[in-house]
Amino acid sequence: MNTLEIPEPTVKRLSSYLLVLLQLQEQGKRYVSSNELADELFIESGKVRKDFQYARIKGRPKRGYEVPYLIQEIDRILNWTGPKPAIIIGAGSLGTAMLGYENFNRYGIKFMGAFDVDRRRVGMDIHGVKISHIDDLESVVKSKGIKIAVMTLPGENIQEITDRLVKAGIKGIWNFAPVRLGAPEGVAVVNAQFSESLAVLTQQVD
Amino acid sequence: MNTLEIPEPTVKRLSSYLLVLLQLQEQGKRYVSSNELADELFIESGKVRKDFQYARIKGRPKRGYEVPYLIQEIDRILNWTGPKPAIIIGAGSLGTAMLGYENFNRYGIKFMGAFDVDRRRVGMDIHGVKISHIDDLESVVKSKGIKIAVMTLPGENIQEITDRLVKAGIKGIWNFAPVRLGAPEGVAVVNAQFSESLAVLTQQVD
Repeated sequence: MNTLEIPEPTVKRLSSYLLVLLQLQEQGKRYVSSNELADELFIESGKVRKDFQYARIKGRPKRGYEVPYLIQEIDRILNWTGPKPAIIIGAGSLGTAMLGYENFNRYGIKFMGAFDVDRRRVGMDIHGVKISHIDDLESVVKSKGIKIAVMTLPGENIQEITDRLVKAGIKGIWNFAPVRLGAPEGVAVVNAQFSESLAVLTQQVD
Repeated sequence: MNTLEIPEPTVKRLSSYLLVLLQLQEQGKRYVSSNELADELFIESGKVRKDFQYARIKGRPKRGYEVPYLIQEIDRILNWTGPKPAIIIGAGSLGTAMLGYENFNRYGIKFMGAFDVDRRRVGMDIHGVKISHIDDLESVVKSKGIKIAVMTLPGENIQEITDRLVKAGIKGIWNFAPVRLGAPEGVAVVNAQFSESLAVLTQQVD
């Protein structure tokens, strides 16, 4: 576990700053101010400075923040210095799309395996990853030392599979299944149901 | 706009309660207590009661909440009483997966059109939806009275396309592009970058 206690909204914004910083780096920019970052993300510049205080990131008077230093520090805090081996549970349309999403390498994970309950999918190769049967979960997770799982099954037996993942050594679960997941102490669960995020949108649109 | 001012975490949980309630309804259950709902979602039962207060949903002493009434009220608040016409911008792998995701009908949206910048995709039929060129955005949005857009383009010109959407009459944008979006007053934007949600996960996994 990372030793810094950083509030979740700050962690999310750090990832957004990083996307902007990578663009600035490409443009050859060496320094950036909190005002510039704030403008890019439609937030207040005070929030940017506060976020960097939480992350213990320091700027230089007048010049602002050094771009390569900011990128390095954010990558370190998010554990994005190199992609971690991950698996995906569910090789349907969402799972397939995620296996083909190249940006994940930059966001700290790399898929080393995929699992499905449907035997017709087993053995298929999707974007270079072989689909295994869910029965082989434990052996793959243990032999490859996998710590992160992405759940894209449509909803059956999700909690049971989660318990198996945790027992096998998984430390983080990114859950897209239409079921909220509980996990024991020491295991991070990020529930990312489309229904939740869509609820926030449609509630505001008549 | 919905007249009730409901905090965002409550709105998200309302959608989660609904998923549980639909299962209970299938099992023929007529009443549910806040304790039962809380247990299903791994939260405190006081939070459930508070959420229902915000939503002005009433229970009955001893019997708890009536399942069909809860479903009806949550659907009303989330504007999920019937799916609203929506479009998707970007017919790559994520866009394609979303076009095939049948649950969206239950979560308040139905795709009536899809757009891409790549002319090779134009005219293709993906899960029953025809892909149009991004140049035809305005005419489709206006003629079909579309209010919701889902953004799954990889990142170029996103803000420019957003401005066009808003001008054409779009009132809600669900953004998966790796760029935070700003939108004018009266337009709801839900930024749902995978990078943000993954940051929260990987930051906790060493």
